[in-house]
Amino acid sequence: MTITITAFERSPDGGQGLARDTRVRWALEKVGQPYEVRLVSFAALKEPAHLRLHPFGQIPTYEEGDVALFETGAIVLHLAKRHAGLLPADARARARAIAWIFAALNTVEPPILELVTAKLLEADAPWSALRLPLVKDRVRVRLRQLSAHLGDADWLDGAFSAGDLMMVSVLLRLRSSGLLDEFPNLRAYVARGEARPAYERAFAAQLAVNTAPPADG
Amino acid sequence: MTITITAFERSPDGGQGLARDTRVRWALEKVGQPYEVRLVSFAALKEPAHLRLHPFGQIPTYEEGDVALFETGAIVLHLAKRHAGLLPADARARARAIAWIFAALNTVEPPILELVTAKLLEADAPWSALRLPLVKDRVRVRLRQLSAHLGDADWLDGAFSAGDLMMVSVLLRLRSSGLLDEFPNLRAYVARGEARPAYERAFAAQLAVNTAPPADG
Repeated sequence: MTITITAFERSPDGGQGLARDTRVRWALEKVGQPYEVRLVSFAALKEPAHLRLHPFGQIPTYEEGDVALFETGAIVLHLAKRHAGLLPADARARARAIAWIFAALNTVEPPILELVTAKLLEADAPWSALRLPLVKDRVRVRLRQLSAHLGDADWLDGAFSAGDLMMVSVLLRLRSSGLLDEFPNLRAYVARGEARPAYERAFAAQLAVNTAPPADG
Repeated sequence: MTITITAFERSPDGGQGLARDTRVRWALEKVGQPYEVRLVSFAALKEPAHLRLHPFGQIPTYEEGDVALFETGAIVLHLAKRHAGLLPADARARARAIAWIFAALNTVEPPILELVTAKLLEADAPWSALRLPLVKDRVRVRLRQLSAHLGDADWLDGAFSAGDLMMVSVLLRLRSSGLLDEFPNLRAYVARGEARPAYERAFAAQLAVNTAPPADG
């Protein structure tokens, strides 16, 4: 059965790989499943047809036969359970890897989202310059803890897993902030993720969409 | 094997059930698994013994034999996979319920966390009164979408599932803000969750901890 995901017609990041379809593309490349991409305009995200697939009007979504999913975490976990390559076989290690998916999305990403929001939506607010250092400090709290856990290991919990895929993807959002440079082992961890062949293929695929000439009207 | 979770010795909310151990207690009550609770002081959260269990120094954690987990989402999912009562049997419906767990934690909770942070850590900042309406509007965007999806259904996707457990738990954090009152179907949804016997038992258990007289020094 064909797997179809959705992605932005034009990503706001211009192809830096920060839109969430890159996370799903990476998982699909890792497990070796071919997929098709349906591109969605910003206007179409708010239309009933898309909201039926994604109640919050975001990308990516995932369709395969009668399975229709939203939320990157759920899609990656769904792929990880059905195909080898993203979760360890041992039940105990598997549960740990899943814990790292949730840690990436619910503990590390929220302060990073707050930083992104502060820069994107509140850059011109009168409080912007005063408040930004506080927001960055809240990100640093999580990075310090993550850095302490990682130490000199290559990955978060043994071999590379979907937990690393998600954590690297979340940390990539920090590149422009310079915060990663304060934690050399995290910077190296992210670089190891980016150097993986499945990530490289996923990145190239989203870049091709975002650098393609506009479709002829 | 005994299940042991951790919880705050004294929750910052004084027993309103907003600390994340309530989510895990609810899941444990729903699947009918007995559990023990180890209470942790704020100081102990930062100690190596606890950080080995939870790299981000939070509660709850989950231990059962040689399985040691952190992250509420991972713990609830672990319980849901091992015991009946929290996920539908059908694979398609199961994947949908898991999508709702992630939607609660990665799409609906982040703006709510931002509101909690604004009130808790930035209440005295000079920008507080000006900025709070913006933060509330970002929460409203998600509530409006969630409300539209729920419509007049009882639960998010068919029968009650771990997805509802997590979404109700996330929405409960909004009670003091009054924002839920703007969406009557969401207010009723949360009330339905709170009226479930497993939630009532979980709430009572955490309340007992938080209203107990201090241990005799």
